[in-house]
Amino acid sequence: MQDYFKNIPEIKFEGENSDNPLAFKFYDENKTILGKSMKEHFRFATCYWHTFTWPGLDPFGGQTFERPWMGNADPIKMAEQKLNCAFDFFTKIKTPFFCFHDRDIAPEGSNYKETQKNFMHIIDLMEYKIEETGMKLLWGTANAFSHKRYMSGASTNPDPEVFAYKAAQVKDCMDATLRLGGQNYVLWGGREGYETILNTDMSKEMDNLKRFLELVVNYKHKIGFKGQILIEPKPHEPTKHQYDFDSAACLAFIRKAGLEGEIKLNIEANHATLSGHNYEHEIAYAIANDALGSLDINRGDTLIGWDTDQFPNNPADLIMAFYFIFSNGGLGNGGLNFDAKIRRQSIDPEDLFYAHIGGMDVCAKTLVAVEKLIDDNVIPKFIKDRYSDWDGELGKYIHNKDSSLDSIHQRVIDNDIDPKTRSGRQEYLENIINKYL
Amino acid sequence: MQDYFKNIPEIKFEGENSDNPLAFKFYDENKTILGKSMKEHFRFATCYWHTFTWPGLDPFGGQTFERPWMGNADPIKMAEQKLNCAFDFFTKIKTPFFCFHDRDIAPEGSNYKETQKNFMHIIDLMEYKIEETGMKLLWGTANAFSHKRYMSGASTNPDPEVFAYKAAQVKDCMDATLRLGGQNYVLWGGREGYETILNTDMSKEMDNLKRFLELVVNYKHKIGFKGQILIEPKPHEPTKHQYDFDSAACLAFIRKAGLEGEIKLNIEANHATLSGHNYEHEIAYAIANDALGSLDINRGDTLIGWDTDQFPNNPADLIMAFYFIFSNGGLGNGGLNFDAKIRRQSIDPEDLFYAHIGGMDVCAKTLVAVEKLIDDNVIPKFIKDRYSDWDGELGKYIHNKDSSLDSIHQRVIDNDIDPKTRSGRQEYLENIINKYL
Amino acid sequence: MQDYFKNIPEIKFEGENSDNPLAFKFYDENKTILGKSMKEHFRFATCYWHTFTWPGLDPFGGQTFERPWMGNADPIKMAEQKLNCAFDFFTKIKTPFFCFHDRDIAPEGSNYKETQKNFMHIIDLMEYKIEETGMKLLWGTANAFSHKRYMSGASTNPDPEVFAYKAAQVKDCMDATLRLGGQNYVLWGGREGYETILNTDMSKEMDNLKRFLELVVNYKHKIGFKGQILIEPKPHEPTKHQYDFDSAACLAFIRKAGLEGEIKLNIEANHATLSGHNYEHEIAYAIANDALGSLDINRGDTLIGWDTDQFPNNPADLIMAFYFIFSNGGLGNGGLNFDAKIRRQSIDPEDLFYAHIGGMDVCAKTLVAVEKLIDDNVIPKFIKDRYSDWDGELGKYIHNKDSSLDSIHQRVIDNDIDPKTRSGRQEYLENIINKYL
Amino acid sequence: MQDYFKNIPEIKFEGENSDNPLAFKFYDENKTILGKSMKEHFRFATCYWHTFTWPGLDPFGGQTFERPWMGNADPIKMAEQKLNCAFDFFTKIKTPFFCFHDRDIAPEGSNYKETQKNFMHIIDLMEYKIEETGMKLLWGTANAFSHKRYMSGASTNPDPEVFAYKAAQVKDCMDATLRLGGQNYVLWGGREGYETILNTDMSKEMDNLKRFLELVVNYKHKIGFKGQILIEPKPHEPTKHQYDFDSAACLAFIRKAGLEGEIKLNIEANHATLSGHNYEHEIAYAIANDALGSLDINRGDTLIGWDTDQFPNNPADLIMAFYFIFSNGGLGNGGLNFDAKIRRQSIDPEDLFYAHIGGMDVCAKTLVAVEKLIDDNVIPKFIKDRYSDWDGELGKYIHNKDSSLDSIHQRVIDNDIDPKTRSGRQEYLENIINKYL
Repeated sequence: MQDYFKNIPEIKFEGENSDNPLAFKFYDENKTILGKSMKEHFRFATCYWHTFTWPGLDPFGGQTFERPWMGNADPIKMAEQKLNCAFDFFTKIKTPFFCFHDRDIAPEGSNYKETQKNFMHIIDLMEYKIEETGMKLLWGTANAFSHKRYMSGASTNPDPEVFAYKAAQVKDCMDATLRLGGQNYVLWGGREGYETILNTDMSKEMDNLKRFLELVVNYKHKIGFKGQILIEPKPHEPTKHQYDFDSAACLAFIRKAGLEGEIKLNIEANHATLSGHNYEHEIAYAIANDALGSLDINRGDTLIGWDTDQFPNNPADLIMAFYFIFSNGGLGNGGLNFDAKIRRQSIDPEDLFYAHIGGMDVCAKTLVAVEKLIDDNVIPKFIKDRYSDWDGELGKYIHNKDSSLDSIHQRVIDNDIDPKTRSGRQEYLENIINKYL
Repeated sequence: MQDYFKNIPEIKFEGENSDNPLAFKFYDENKTILGKSMKEHFRFATCYWHTFTWPGLDPFGGQTFERPWMGNADPIKMAEQKLNCAFDFFTKIKTPFFCFHDRDIAPEGSNYKETQKNFMHIIDLMEYKIEETGMKLLWGTANAFSHKRYMSGASTNPDPEVFAYKAAQVKDCMDATLRLGGQNYVLWGGREGYETILNTDMSKEMDNLKRFLELVVNYKHKIGFKGQILIEPKPHEPTKHQYDFDSAACLAFIRKAGLEGEIKLNIEANHATLSGHNYEHEIAYAIANDALGSLDINRGDTLIGWDTDQFPNNPADLIMAFYFIFSNGGLGNGGLNFDAKIRRQSIDPEDLFYAHIGGMDVCAKTLVAVEKLIDDNVIPKFIKDRYSDWDGELGKYIHNKDSSLDSIHQRVIDNDIDPKTRSGRQEYLENIINKYL
Repeated sequence: MQDYFKNIPEIKFEGENSDNPLAFKFYDENKTILGKSMKEHFRFATCYWHTFTWPGLDPFGGQTFERPWMGNADPIKMAEQKLNCAFDFFTKIKTPFFCFHDRDIAPEGSNYKETQKNFMHIIDLMEYKIEETGMKLLWGTANAFSHKRYMSGASTNPDPEVFAYKAAQVKDCMDATLRLGGQNYVLWGGREGYETILNTDMSKEMDNLKRFLELVVNYKHKIGFKGQILIEPKPHEPTKHQYDFDSAACLAFIRKAGLEGEIKLNIEANHATLSGHNYEHEIAYAIANDALGSLDINRGDTLIGWDTDQFPNNPADLIMAFYFIFSNGGLGNGGLNFDAKIRRQSIDPEDLFYAHIGGMDVCAKTLVAVEKLIDDNVIPKFIKDRYSDWDGELGKYIHNKDSSLDSIHQRVIDNDIDPKTRSGRQEYLENIINKYL
Repeated sequence: MQDYFKNIPEIKFEGENSDNPLAFKFYDENKTILGKSMKEHFRFATCYWHTFTWPGLDPFGGQTFERPWMGNADPIKMAEQKLNCAFDFFTKIKTPFFCFHDRDIAPEGSNYKETQKNFMHIIDLMEYKIEETGMKLLWGTANAFSHKRYMSGASTNPDPEVFAYKAAQVKDCMDATLRLGGQNYVLWGGREGYETILNTDMSKEMDNLKRFLELVVNYKHKIGFKGQILIEPKPHEPTKHQYDFDSAACLAFIRKAGLEGEIKLNIEANHATLSGHNYEHEIAYAIANDALGSLDINRGDTLIGWDTDQFPNNPADLIMAFYFIFSNGGLGNGGLNFDAKIRRQSIDPEDLFYAHIGGMDVCAKTLVAVEKLIDDNVIPKFIKDRYSDWDGELGKYIHNKDSSLDSIHQRVIDNDIDPKTRSGRQEYLENIINKYL
């Protein structure tokens, strides 16, 4: 049944004027832009969970997708069939990378040993598939939130057995990520938080979270994994409050744990908007704090209060995010992971392709705009000029170790300092951006 | 015109059955509870700005309050009259503390020198008033957001002259706070953020903010101010994004600046809800991170997206916040500041009293409930028991330096660990809380 | 296995000082208040779906509840077992009413005929159970949102076959409701809306919705059902936009359809807050428009953007809602339905009881407060006085048919009308409310 | 001082490649598109209040704009100067229309008679200016929310004198609108709602609102005003709750008042998003209900909970809104009013121009995309096809008067109806839209 996508050809670049919905209009993987090919810049990844595992549920409705591997038979056979279909999809959509959770790819067994065996069986097959296709693993991660054992948290669970269980999963998943050549390892703390403060010892939970991060970093060094360890911020959902609320909250506890430099961030647009920020804010903040690791490139709907995990469809939502990234050295070991799901009404195999094509094209179109933004140098120069007085005498004095509130106060009095207002030119700059889009 | 409140008597405790709207029903300042008088626990403060300076404006409407000191005449005379009325109010409402911004109490002059002179003139009078009445200053702060010079930020302004101007203000205000026996000094960064990322160098702005904090801490030590330096988190408004978004964001940059221990937090309920948290979360988080300084005790309206700064009116909103505080040593040098304003339709002098009476009574009623919550020990014990396995062998092993992901993994396999779920008992605990309210 | 609740006794009223978590503290069903027993006022209902059918799923996690009737065996046997346990629960918790969706109580068959047969089988048993226990049906409703056939809407589906299918379900469910003595019939339009306007003909969908409502009203009269037909407003979730957004949106289309008086509203607190209103607003609005039918008494979490369906736990959230209802003739044919679910961590049978006990007690406590509010007549009188000038000459003139903008304008000029502001006394009134709570 | 804009030339169309920030890149007023010139399609209007009256205040800060007419001198002289500058701006920016509130253009006097005199004085001058320049009035409106007399509502005030005062204002403003050739008259109910339900008689307030609408419609007919009467929905701000929450809420009370057809809607993007909808929803809804009157074309910031009133800057936010309008006969008597304000940091006269140029260009760019969307007919055809079964036998039968729930039920049984799901193709359609942008 790896024929599920048999009617769909490999997706090719056909250019802006193509009417073929199964072709790229903007994403030309070999096109050089800002000194590298699009493929090298974006490092797109397809995610395994939404794309192959999610059956179309929502809180008020059941399965709508009828993928052949979602039948009732032997779960291991189903996992094998899913793997084949997934790699068929990867090679047709041509994202060079993919990402997975341990539980997406292999079923839970009757105890941990059997679960591990199931997992390793699929990892063996995956290793072969990777070799066969040239696909690469952007990152691996362990699902420590779906099973009921995690209902009250994973590393922040009141029960240390749950912490231990997650530790076991993460160990196996890090091993597999290393073996498969994975370039990053991600921790998403979907249940690392609380539902009600009435039954919660926040201090103890955050201490346990800190211990978990230490164990992960120690193990990374022990096994010689060279990739990045990444935390993915999200404010809530499923949990009422999650400790990794946003980039700043993550940095607060990373710094407390003394792990700055060891752990970076995997930032998602939809999580950013749920936390009251936008994507470019979270990215610029991570860059300013030297903590940008990788990106999830799915959007939300700002009129809706839950994670909609939609494919990006608007260059205006991405241009500043991409500008910060690509004018600051690019994604490095990170990439753009489509942690995005098609709508539950989009039930056909084609819909999976339309969604990824749309997302990749929007990124490509945005990068072309960003190149112009960088080349024209109007906005970068505007920003530089706006702060240029900080290179002047007063600016330098303020940052001089010898200055103090009272010495600066004296200057205000002596020089009768009376700052003049200058236009922030927001509308002018917005018009400039619109030239590029 | 210090006769503005002449028809209003000193507010007295009359008990729960009183029908007198100008009496306390629950707040009995001398009543001992949890080992101290209510007065000593709460350390209530009236704020100068909302209570005496705000004229009832909103974004769509003009002045509704006609306080006698809001006329057109000599601004210094007006400031003196306001001061007299304010102390008249303080002594009648009997909050033991008050708080002020420099610009609430004295008018801006034609240049900084004159502004400073105006300020010092009122500080002289205030010092006399404090001596006369026994009122105390909970904290002072400088208004670095209302004047147009601050429209693009204060310490994060692109113009270092604005930074210098704010530095001058803060120096004078810290000096005044010290002289008046103020117990804390607060920094609220209303415009320390950005309106549009298109004209913003976030990295530079956050560096300048860091420098500002260093200068303040250095100056505190220089002048021998023993009070706490506090930052007040707020996510946005007036600015689209503020760097001190929430407690975690503040701790992230305080830790980056190496100023942990030097700077704590002044947490406000309305700011908490605007950032997607609730009050008890922000307080518990601050306590867990040893960063609780003081509290603003005004609430918002969670169906409304801006700061409504209303007086607290619901013990259910405060009980867990107070539980965390009063079971963790209380407010220390901090206090409960009513950073709250009456509605712009509440135009009479009586309305100012009704609002404060209501707020103080709600706090008192809540504290009585908290005493029972602590004494009954049902919820505290429930929480302790819930985490008790962390005191067991596995819990201790996890926190042992020698444990590692692989050694824990081995235990999971060896012992066939399969954690059992236990009810979180949220509804049971909510019912218990309702017994106290 | 109807022994699932065997360790739990019938819940009794034990009064405020009881420490028994399985007893009512405030809800004394026979206590007379405002002229009727509590039981008669509240007309509490347990809902079948959340309480017996929901397995504890959330968008990121699987089943946590292990009810005996959720096993793998024969679905009809399971439905029978569930029915027995449900009535066991009803008689122990002593809500006099219950509510159900057709699909909660009986499984889908392989075609509509078989589905109908399954449904009628359980209805037969239910009729017997009702006779045996004295339980009453507050309302029935058809689930036209969970099955994938409804993924694009039910009566607003692009496919008329789906409309027809829903029509068939509703016919059977109305028949069953009539037969079981149900007092209302509810329509909740969870998918009557759209996910994307790009594929939607809103005009056609709203016409089809109108046609559906006509058919339902016609059928009600045809079969002689004397109960109310109710629409339940909800702004979104599962659908991005739902046509029955709030009470006003429902009234807009009910009026357009010419069905005012035939269709009333079933208002839910959580849906109210998701639409930007609060519960008391939606209720007061429905009363002002003579459209109040019945209530769902579950709350949300205003810091969270999805339906949390929690049990009510705060009298302050209910007092004004109850004041409007019980000072306007009460609930009539309607009732208070706990469309509420326990948290997915509350996995024990006891938790179902704690939750309902807490909800019923909170309602009882609130009603006691409302009785005082009505008896004291302070707030009702304040409101009456505030508008009393509308009974004066000018007020009457304005409502006189002969007045016109120009004649009123002339009065303003002639009488030099210059309205004076009067305090709205919000804080004073909030303090009064707090006396009752 | 009508020389305020003297350094700014008349804005001309220079095309997409122009680097002149004071030129149109897309808005070519004479370009024909979809059968009419851009100028005729858009009917752009500059608003008087934000553009010439707002001084740059926000809730935490004072005036930032130093327009010459905002000095301290004679208010009538200032109004005359403002008028001259406004018309100078209009003729340079070349919006063919403008809009005003009575209080923007002329100052309040010491009583109503004097206020009226001030107003008529400016109306006289404005009439002359209109004749001189060829500018047209899109709509007039009365400000019944800024003065403190309106703090508790205008037509919904507890005091009938306030109702009368507003009636007088509206009469004068309708007369002026008629005299100046205004094409619409708008009612925005900024304070027609309530702050707290504790002091509010919603039923009486909504009756008074209804009476006001009747008076306005009667007066329109009496004076022979041929323009549309429009209500502008807004959910809240300044008031906690406003009766004209959204389009549906307005239609609910318009229908109750029996005024359908007499009153239509003026829909604003920012108000739409504050109410939980988006712009295209509100517009499509108004069209489906034959209630579209005119549009305010300012956007909000969906991460911010208040009215930011920004200029539109994203074609993706407008394309579906424009598609519905321009494929349904266009704006008719309505137009696109920039009810938008520049940021308070945009302090220079140029900034006013940049903002309007940006907004007009974005509209023009969007219209070009809409023309292609209509011409290609992919999306319109997709929608038509999706609902085409409603033209088949079953669809027609459902809408036949003789059908009933039971007859349709019989068909489901007889024909074993079992609807098949069809993909909604959301991602495919989003990709198509992106081709046009």
